[in-house]
Amino acid sequence: MSQDWAPMWKELGLDLKAHDELLNVLGKFYNDIFMSQKDRPQGMQYFDFVMSEVHGLRIKELLDAKAQSRKVIATFCLYIPEEIALATNAVQVGLCGGAEMGFNIAEKYLPRNTCSLIKSFFGFSEAKICPYFEASDLVVGENTCDGKKKAYEIFKDLRNLYVMDMPNMKHEKGRELLKSEYIKYLQMMEKLTGKKITVESLKKGIHIANEKRKAIGRVMDLRKHNPTPISGKDALLINQVAFYDDPLRFTDSVNKIADECEKRVKNKIGVVSKETPRILVSGCPMAVPNWKVPHVIETNGAVIVGEESCVGMRNIRNLVSDKGNTVEQLVDNLVDRYFKIDCAIFTPNKDRLDHIVQMAKDLKADGVVHYSLQFCTPYNTESHLVENTLQKAKIPLLKIETDYSMEDMGQLNTRVQAFVEMIKK
Amino acid sequence: MSQDWAPMWKELGLDLKAHDELLNVLGKFYNDIFMSQKDRPQGMQYFDFVMSEVHGLRIKELLDAKAQSRKVIATFCLYIPEEIALATNAVQVGLCGGAEMGFNIAEKYLPRNTCSLIKSFFGFSEAKICPYFEASDLVVGENTCDGKKKAYEIFKDLRNLYVMDMPNMKHEKGRELLKSEYIKYLQMMEKLTGKKITVESLKKGIHIANEKRKAIGRVMDLRKHNPTPISGKDALLINQVAFYDDPLRFTDSVNKIADECEKRVKNKIGVVSKETPRILVSGCPMAVPNWKVPHVIETNGAVIVGEESCVGMRNIRNLVSDKGNTVEQLVDNLVDRYFKIDCAIFTPNKDRLDHIVQMAKDLKADGVVHYSLQFCTPYNTESHLVENTLQKAKIPLLKIETDYSMEDMGQLNTRVQAFVEMIKK
Repeated sequence: MSQDWAPMWKELGLDLKAHDELLNVLGKFYNDIFMSQKDRPQGMQYFDFVMSEVHGLRIKELLDAKAQSRKVIATFCLYIPEEIALATNAVQVGLCGGAEMGFNIAEKYLPRNTCSLIKSFFGFSEAKICPYFEASDLVVGENTCDGKKKAYEIFKDLRNLYVMDMPNMKHEKGRELLKSEYIKYLQMMEKLTGKKITVESLKKGIHIANEKRKAIGRVMDLRKHNPTPISGKDALLINQVAFYDDPLRFTDSVNKIADECEKRVKNKIGVVSKETPRILVSGCPMAVPNWKVPHVIETNGAVIVGEESCVGMRNIRNLVSDKGNTVEQLVDNLVDRYFKIDCAIFTPNKDRLDHIVQMAKDLKADGVVHYSLQFCTPYNTESHLVENTLQKAKIPLLKIETDYSMEDMGQLNTRVQAFVEMIKK
Repeated sequence: MSQDWAPMWKELGLDLKAHDELLNVLGKFYNDIFMSQKDRPQGMQYFDFVMSEVHGLRIKELLDAKAQSRKVIATFCLYIPEEIALATNAVQVGLCGGAEMGFNIAEKYLPRNTCSLIKSFFGFSEAKICPYFEASDLVVGENTCDGKKKAYEIFKDLRNLYVMDMPNMKHEKGRELLKSEYIKYLQMMEKLTGKKITVESLKKGIHIANEKRKAIGRVMDLRKHNPTPISGKDALLINQVAFYDDPLRFTDSVNKIADECEKRVKNKIGVVSKETPRILVSGCPMAVPNWKVPHVIETNGAVIVGEESCVGMRNIRNLVSDKGNTVEQLVDNLVDRYFKIDCAIFTPNKDRLDHIVQMAKDLKADGVVHYSLQFCTPYNTESHLVENTLQKAKIPLLKIETDYSMEDMGQLNTRVQAFVEMIKK
């Protein structure tokens, strides 16, 4: 880390001892999983730096932004449009937790049979080890799955929380609800920041978010080449950092990696050999530092070429149109784009099934690993339909249901190894 | 049973061997749990008869109704308004399963970590042991919890299924959604039955459903007296049979029990002694033959005086107004009533918390047993708020999370016994 951030963390009210332990584990974990990789694009050094400063410099930046009267909004879900925060000059950061931290505290509030993602955000918050919670002015939740929907009722007594409602179905009434929730959210953000959102400021927000999506999309698209120019772990890291980093700097850094990957592809330089089995990972989001399954896949002789996930394609697919002369028209454009997100909370959700097949084909994947968190009802139940769909498309599938613990590492290694062996050309 | 129904069951396509096994278990279970009780109201004999014929005479009645061109609608949830089915002269029956049957088949479609209620309806359907599925023209589902919402996507390929959408929140848009879904449902039912719903027919449906609620309400209200005139198991049975039986005959039979219970109260005759600890059960619905927890409670020295549950007060609380001169006005009345149902799928759901306290006080309960099915995220998560609320109200609480298996009977007996000991006056 670039300097001693302990005074800042203390000021924020973190539990310094527990936080130090977290950083030690995280640092070791990151070294083992990322720094051990060979032939990474040089541009990944930026992300190594970002990760080393994810609780340091980045938090300092958030506090500096606050000192300039900007607001910091912390979110859990793709459905909260960053464009609106950007239009008010606020900073939006992601809060999803990807580690088994503070679970003993989380389980005082939540059923044991709650998915790790939800327990993790409770744990990070209540164990006072997450500077993003402490640096944020407002936490924004959303009624997506039952787990989050009901957890927010408890969480609202612990943090300054705003909850956005969500529809279950993509019919006209569902669209109306999403639009009215986006308008309510926009008005709330105007009030919070004291900044009136204009056509110009919202267009600027749309532009920044689109450029971010396009930059990530460039890297992701290059992975269809064989050999693939970047590892799945590094690609996931880019997708993860997208939720934390300053969007302009991030976009610039990702475009540099895309340039580098383009050259690699042109020169037929890959991060693995051409013979390496190619895997599409599909399912639940993987928040930092949830690198378990990708690490298992890529240390068992395969390479990941795509993420059909919220921390992946669901976040960057489809741009928001900037056509329109009123704020309402632009909000309609937001709804158009966000309503296409094919999260398993929707019913029916056939678009996702089609998209998995399409991604597997576009990326020339030899097989799909469906990843779901234990107790995540939407993704676990939908995995039956994913299985049927991939069977029909004759694409091999391995279904993994796991949590954030390391207890099933032996079993995961065995299952993934057997799957990789099976899909080898 | 009054006659040999095997030919009917065969005709319906049931798996006769598996179905016989179910009936044997069910019969023995019923005898042990219900017939062993002392001092039951005489009127319960009707319910003993109904239960002995639940797969026999009642199915014959459904088939007779169909022979007269009436339609049979099978539902899982309180939010499907029986008034609409009644207005089309259709028969509505409940489908929720309360036994661990066909789970091995259900788990071919659903995650193992799915609640027993959902696995049970899949199991009963796909093991071909439920004549209600086979006798129904249409199964009506609804987007309540994630488990059901996503399970219906799979179930729609197995049965003729109509799914009603539901809101997450009780705001204006939520109400609009429910109303539009009720209108869509009404139109679908008109098409299915070939019967135009009129103000008159809908008022008739409202009347029948209200009378049913009032009759059950009379019995439930009498349980506030000490000693209580009826056991919790028998009261639950009345609530359960409400979903299967012919509504007019049912209402009549329940009113007779209410008359009998009134006399008992007047004469200070109870089903247990005045000193017996009184318990309110709150939480997930208990579908036939899910009598496990009530049996444990009432064989450990306590008596149940109320059910804060879908198979209980949530089903009968609040009547539908029959004021109105148009079908739309009456649909508005339906929405008014059904929107008050305080299921844990809603967020926030403070009404339920208040109602538990109110019921506990009205019924003079010495304690509350919160009953939830394992993997039922809405009720399990909400139980934290129930706990906080009851603590504030100084009402003792025992939280039970269980499933349909008998494996935890020893543990349940121990925990309930200790709780009953604790709340003894």
